[in-house]
Amino acid sequence: MSISDRRRRRTKASPVEAVAGNGLLDRRALLGRGVILAGAMSAAPLGSLTGAAAEPQADTPLADAPWSLEPGATIEPYERPSRFEKNVVRTLNNPNGQPGAQGARTPHHLVNGAITPNGLHFVVSHGGAPDIDPDKHRLVVHGLVKRPLVFTFDALARYPMTTRVTFLECGGNGGPLFSPQPLQANLQALHGLASCAEWTGVKLSTLLEETGIDPKAKWFIAEGADAPHLARSVPLKKALDDAMIALYQNGERLMPANGYPMRLLLPGYEGNMNIKYLRRIKLVEGPAMSFWEAKTYAPILPNGKAYQFYLLQEVKSFITQPSPGLTLKEPGLYEISGIAYSGTGRIAKVTVSADGGQSWAEAALAEPVLSKAFTRFRMPWRWDGGAAILQSRAWDEAGNVQPTRAQFVAQRGELKSVPPVGVVLNQHFNAITSWGVDSTGEVKHVYA
Amino acid sequence: MSISDRRRRRTKASPVEAVAGNGLLDRRALLGRGVILAGAMSAAPLGSLTGAAAEPQADTPLADAPWSLEPGATIEPYERPSRFEKNVVRTLNNPNGQPGAQGARTPHHLVNGAITPNGLHFVVSHGGAPDIDPDKHRLVVHGLVKRPLVFTFDALARYPMTTRVTFLECGGNGGPLFSPQPLQANLQALHGLASCAEWTGVKLSTLLEETGIDPKAKWFIAEGADAPHLARSVPLKKALDDAMIALYQNGERLMPANGYPMRLLLPGYEGNMNIKYLRRIKLVEGPAMSFWEAKTYAPILPNGKAYQFYLLQEVKSFITQPSPGLTLKEPGLYEISGIAYSGTGRIAKVTVSADGGQSWAEAALAEPVLSKAFTRFRMPWRWDGGAAILQSRAWDEAGNVQPTRAQFVAQRGELKSVPPVGVVLNQHFNAITSWGVDSTGEVKHVYA
Repeated sequence: MSISDRRRRRTKASPVEAVAGNGLLDRRALLGRGVILAGAMSAAPLGSLTGAAAEPQADTPLADAPWSLEPGATIEPYERPSRFEKNVVRTLNNPNGQPGAQGARTPHHLVNGAITPNGLHFVVSHGGAPDIDPDKHRLVVHGLVKRPLVFTFDALARYPMTTRVTFLECGGNGGPLFSPQPLQANLQALHGLASCAEWTGVKLSTLLEETGIDPKAKWFIAEGADAPHLARSVPLKKALDDAMIALYQNGERLMPANGYPMRLLLPGYEGNMNIKYLRRIKLVEGPAMSFWEAKTYAPILPNGKAYQFYLLQEVKSFITQPSPGLTLKEPGLYEISGIAYSGTGRIAKVTVSADGGQSWAEAALAEPVLSKAFTRFRMPWRWDGGAAILQSRAWDEAGNVQPTRAQFVAQRGELKSVPPVGVVLNQHFNAITSWGVDSTGEVKHVYA
Repeated sequence: MSISDRRRRRTKASPVEAVAGNGLLDRRALLGRGVILAGAMSAAPLGSLTGAAAEPQADTPLADAPWSLEPGATIEPYERPSRFEKNVVRTLNNPNGQPGAQGARTPHHLVNGAITPNGLHFVVSHGGAPDIDPDKHRLVVHGLVKRPLVFTFDALARYPMTTRVTFLECGGNGGPLFSPQPLQANLQALHGLASCAEWTGVKLSTLLEETGIDPKAKWFIAEGADAPHLARSVPLKKALDDAMIALYQNGERLMPANGYPMRLLLPGYEGNMNIKYLRRIKLVEGPAMSFWEAKTYAPILPNGKAYQFYLLQEVKSFITQPSPGLTLKEPGLYEISGIAYSGTGRIAKVTVSADGGQSWAEAALAEPVLSKAFTRFRMPWRWDGGAAILQSRAWDEAGNVQPTRAQFVAQRGELKSVPPVGVVLNQHFNAITSWGVDSTGEVKHVYA
């Protein structure tokens, strides 16, 4: 279809249901009015809506394809995705496991909903995935407690458990957006170090009722059993709030690279603090000033101070569809969809713009909207074939709002040059992300 | 430990926090009172709480195990569970894929939370898992519509989508409990044909706005693309309510044995009606009387009538931990945990008994309690080492309650003899399930 064809199609658009500029549509109006939807989709009887069906004879849906004529594969004890989904995988920054960090990023542009399946949950690892025998693993709670205790997995599993959905996000997620020019990479590369799962385990406060707490204790140090023995300091108030020793991830035991057989879960806090392979909780008077908190996660701000012990992952959102790599094939109706989350609590509102922030409309939020969890947002959009800049902006229930990128870098600084893809050089980026759509339907990362 | 030792321990139990007979404890009292919990758990400083740690020297938690001393495995693009979890799999009734049905049952006794991970979601298949090329798959909506339409996956993905958590349950789940004697099998064999996932897709009502509906239409027939071309009739009111064309399962595309690339999802309705590999929705005036609805899912009731078009999966619950195969190792505190669900709506209440129904106490429900979804319930229990019969009973928000088994079989009949494990001979069992615990800690399926 030529550009001029696309421009002519613009005239079909009805302004009735517009809620913001450049084609954002009212979801309620849309769903109650099939005729407008039909027009927008250019649907035709027994014709494919997207125009992709070039061979109507072969594509007749009731013609039997090979899989309609022969038995399928035998059902497996543990199922895996179709071979046609072989590209729906995490991207690895260090696929040969060389010394140094290994990152595995969630393909947000290829998944949907709020739950990240276990196979695709992001990972940042400093020592690979250890092969821990769960029967030999122990968790000790000691330090400023009244009586230190050791827990096996089986002992933990007898305590009252709790289940909650929560996101995890690496402090470095979105780090490429500190670049002075927009890095040309897809969503997976830019924001793939965040995921969301249903976690089940024992609240740390339950274990501390067992051990008792010395009144001098104000922090605790959590340490992992794998070779890096990664250790982080956490304020004790988090232990008494919603910290959990997670034993199950989306119903099954934790994935090996996500802390099997147990990890610390600190809903809303920086991913690195959610210590995997947890073997030690030590109550102390002050933070340990470990390498991770004294260097890696303490970047220098423009005012010269270190951005240290800034533990919360702040309110954030990004559009997952459309996004770079998902080219729009023709003008018409699309769903703009994405995820929003806040380490503070529930998402209160997400707005979407198709004109680079000149006008905004409120997106629908998928229920249930849970505290410190991914919230899927959706907004219908009629692309007229012209240029567009898509943005989302989230608010949480405490009134926090995502800053614009300009506001953000004014406070937090930016890099002096464009970093290579996959290199994270700064932390806690939560500003607005912008996707530019050009007249060919290609989607690119832009600053706007 | 001898039985007499166990009996002596009984005297330690405080009656203060009891909420029902035979050791059921008040969760609130428990969580606010570490001393009682500690006593119940027989915790000791630096000793394992369950008594399983027989070698304190080797079990010192801060001694470095092999996995603490060497790099772990390289992170994979798509992660799978630890090799130590190789027994956490679906059990297959037909592992060689012989002609006939293949069932794969969820190991409810080994998972936790409310979400069933995709690898473990139950399957009943009549033709194996077809190898469908999603780009060549088509869904046609036709029959009593104003204009028939064909949808590709890409076309569907442009429509407004919806995300919801819902359970699926085979009509035959729990079928072994029609046996006149309690079948000695574990929970996976008895109730493993039910699972719960987050599904994302397009509401069928959205597609019917596109096609329009002829006023004569009262039902629709859904048909799959795999070799059995399984077809079921569904009242049109379900299409206009919450029926969905599901495209994503827990965030990723559907599993091959769960309908890839698309399935019909009818929240709360009999599993078999949720047609996998969906290729046809045909609006009609009356039901098709297909093989499945005229024979398989139309058992004869004691009153001689066929139990036909009884579509709803009614309110149900069962205890997952403890359950057969999970032997209690010593007296002390345990969590009784299980799942409850109703095809009608939300779970309103679950009660638990440890004395075979003589006394009951209300369990805690894990938030969020969602309509037509698994709800995890929990109740602390101090096992004194004596005999116990554990039961759960659920109510839904419409006031429906699980019947006792005696009430159920009076209305619905029972089999004349004990069937082999894995053979389903009747449908829609939703009565109370009972686990008997003996003084050795072994758990068995009993009728009570």
